[in-house]
Amino acid sequence: TDTRVAILTVSDTVASGAGPDRSGPRAVSVVNVSSERLGGARVVATAVVPDDVNKIKDVLQRWSDADKMDLIITVGGTGFTPRDVTPEATKLLIEKETPGLLHVMIQESLKVTPFAMLSRSAAGIRGSTLIINMPGNPNAVAECMEALLPSLKHALKQIKGDKREKHPRHS
Amino acid sequence: TDTRVAILTVSDTVASGAGPDRSGPRAVSVVNVSSERLGGARVVATAVVPDDVNKIKDVLQRWSDADKMDLIITVGGTGFTPRDVTPEATKLLIEKETPGLLHVMIQESLKVTPFAMLSRSAAGIRGSTLIINMPGNPNAVAECMEALLPSLKHALKQIKGDKREKHPRHS
Amino acid sequence: TDTRVAILTVSDTVASGAGPDRSGPRAVSVVNVSSERLGGARVVATAVVPDDVNKIKDVLQRWSDADKMDLIITVGGTGFTPRDVTPEATKLLIEKETPGLLHVMIQESLKVTPFAMLSRSAAGIRGSTLIINMPGNPNAVAECMEALLPSLKHALKQIKGDKREKHPRHS
Ligand code: NA
Repeated sequence: TDTRVAILTVSDTVASGAGPDRSGPRAVSVVNVSSERLGGARVVATAVVPDDVNKIKDVLQRWSDADKMDLIITVGGTGFTPRDVTPEATKLLIEKETPGLLHVMIQESLKVTPFAMLSRSAAGIRGSTLIINMPGNPNAVAECMEALLPSLKHALKQIKGDKREKHPRHS
Repeated sequence: TDTRVAILTVSDTVASGAGPDRSGPRAVSVVNVSSERLGGARVVATAVVPDDVNKIKDVLQRWSDADKMDLIITVGGTGFTPRDVTPEATKLLIEKETPGLLHVMIQESLKVTPFAMLSRSAAGIRGSTLIINMPGNPNAVAECMEALLPSLKHALKQIKGDKREKHPRHS
Repeated sequence: TDTRVAILTVSDTVASGAGPDRSGPRAVSVVNVSSERLGGARVVATAVVPDDVNKIKDVLQRWSDADKMDLIITVGGTGFTPRDVTPEATKLLIEKETPGLLHVMIQESLKVTPFAMLSRSAAGIRGSTLIINMPGNPNAVAECMEALLPSLKHALKQIKGDKREKHPRHS
């Protein structure tokens, strides 16, 4: 019952080779450190794409529909610049929104920095895959994961249809 | 100037007779206890439907358009399992979103349990009816109502077009 | 590198001449007082429209597409009455949602009054213009601006494509 995780770095700079990917590896590290609390999570795929709606969408769709990932975390492309389109690409794919995840990510990140209000992250479920946008800032990835960890394992079990997880606050 | 309330239990288990309805009666009780703070609220209809988008939508539409309920509270079907579709059914019907109500329900519920982040509740206005999704957990219903009570009476008066309620913080 | 701001008062009462505009001038005053923290903000346009989706939409579109405003603040029309349609008009125009701005406005306003949950404000980016709905209550305008000020200058620089502003928490 391992949890298969994929990490997508969204960045023109990284995709063009003009700069190193600091956020993607940080996300991998955060997942690995949290593996047990996530039900035995393993990062089984990583990729880098530029800030392009179609390229983001294509990877998310393949990882959801063909590769049946349990969890996809995107890093980057959630800000206010003209090139930031990760939430728009994500919203084209998700079938069910998960606004509570966005609420806790913003709420907890705001305790660290007021710039957290500039995240436009989307999150939701496609098939049996949970897709969550996180900001490109490496520290933000760790903060967002910390906010989600108390419930993320239950979320992933629910998506797989585990009825025992339906009312976790009773368990 | 009574407030007419309808409670919809959304649950495959309850609808099929495989288990008792704990959330619906709890919601009725919560409304009755809060009747005065809600402007004289009375529960005038209850129903149970399975986790089926069309069946949920049909009841919500009838209670809004034909029966002119002031407030509809749904309980259940807001989680992450494949059968949870209450927010999706609700979003097909609401004409105006009410994101502030969702914010306080999540914010206050998070103070009780981190699993509150797993609620995908929607809320909004259709005609003169306010529709609010609440989780199926009986305690969550009470927590959500508690979060809304300080402003819900004003909300319902505004929906009816009462201009004196337009800037309640001045009254 | 001045920040050009436009303020739209949305109110049947004000538009018909039946009452004074208290919210619009308050918004102008709030922007002027905050000018430096907003990167040299100046209010270069104000207007009053009734609570009519098309009239609201027309002004927002002209100010965004033709006049290339950096920031448009609407005041009024965000409540629960049948005439309140400012968020619906705004959502027809915005290309990218900015949910974090809504989160902090609600979160901070809730500290002042529970009636903040009745705001249905929308916010987002159209082209290079940031559009933010605020409630018609004059105090709410000041509270919402106070909530946004720690990051609004960075937000406006990001929208103009300033890459140095991409990860402001690192600067
Ligand atoms: Na909050």
